[in-house]
Amino acid sequence: MDRKGILVVVSGYSGVGKGTLMKELTARYGQYALSVSATTREPREGEADGREYFFKTEEEFEEMIGQGRLIEYARYCDHYYGTPKDYVEEQLSQGRDVILEIEQQGALKVKAKDTDVLMLFVMPPDAQTLVERLRGRDTESEEVIRQRLTQALEESKYVDRYDYMVVNADLDQAVEEVHHLIESQHNMINRNLDFAKQIQTELKDLVG
Amino acid sequence: MDRKGILVVVSGYSGVGKGTLMKELTARYGQYALSVSATTREPREGEADGREYFFKTEEEFEEMIGQGRLIEYARYCDHYYGTPKDYVEEQLSQGRDVILEIEQQGALKVKAKDTDVLMLFVMPPDAQTLVERLRGRDTESEEVIRQRLTQALEESKYVDRYDYMVVNADLDQAVEEVHHLIESQHNMINRNLDFAKQIQTELKDLVG
Repeated sequence: MDRKGILVVVSGYSGVGKGTLMKELTARYGQYALSVSATTREPREGEADGREYFFKTEEEFEEMIGQGRLIEYARYCDHYYGTPKDYVEEQLSQGRDVILEIEQQGALKVKAKDTDVLMLFVMPPDAQTLVERLRGRDTESEEVIRQRLTQALEESKYVDRYDYMVVNADLDQAVEEVHHLIESQHNMINRNLDFAKQIQTELKDLVG
Repeated sequence: MDRKGILVVVSGYSGVGKGTLMKELTARYGQYALSVSATTREPREGEADGREYFFKTEEEFEEMIGQGRLIEYARYCDHYYGTPKDYVEEQLSQGRDVILEIEQQGALKVKAKDTDVLMLFVMPPDAQTLVERLRGRDTESEEVIRQRLTQALEESKYVDRYDYMVVNADLDQAVEEVHHLIESQHNMINRNLDFAKQIQTELKDLVG
């Protein structure tokens, strides 16, 4: 069976809990690697280079863009954010399934470049739950919550561009679902044609 | 999440153990229904109508063909064999995932008619294991084993028409793999667009 790493893009509305979901998934199963983004913003207290982000200067980041070393990037609030290709390819080549937890525009850019990517969308059980989770963060004002819901409404137009949906009602169950979804992709015929060919050759030798 | 039944076609080389695999799967999980074939051959001792087969007369079977009530059918050794549509549709409408364990030609006919069907191919870990399992049946002469291997070699040319592959090395693990594969299909975006739409409507109401 095929154990080449699979590139998995995970998106979902703000507040749906995709960060927690992915952290739990990678903690539970060793086969996953969470992609680490590059950014030009300053490290916050407690953040380590190569863990939360790869921290880069403007010059370094623009050099990465110029050399095509980013899978996707964007500029928000005067800073660059992007996904370095090297890290992803290194993890994939080691047989790890690499998870890119990125917002929708970046996600669709990755899909456009690489049709082999597995596109997952994390859904809340209902919109009210989303609001409650956003309010539960405390740090968010009602105005910010409203902005996030408006953005979710915008993103909802492109959900059909994803391959699979996972409903995050129960964290434990959602983690298992995501795990089984990704595992199943390793069983795709197209990923196992070499193995099928090998059995065919063995059959030929037996039949003579 | 979508719980409409999924039609699953399962094929695999003779001796690979797909019958045992499907029996174990349906015994373990209540969501599956094994399709029962119709045939014009006589019932053998211990076989019950509607359990091993639906036993039909030639006239009844040809009437079913004429009325388009078979998903696929074929004639072997002077008898008809086929998959009745009614039973499959009844089970699907009750939300069960229906498994058709049929040989490759029938499988490809089903796929040609219904692109929504999930096509699974059960593989042995290697060809030698297949031979040993065929020999282990005792009832098969070396000549029959050779015929089955020749047929497997022929079938190996069409493995790429299937969607997913499961290697039956360990029964318990293979059962779980098939289960997770089918479960994952329920998460496909295309099967859940109504749910996505519902969340979208709720978001619209919240944003106002």
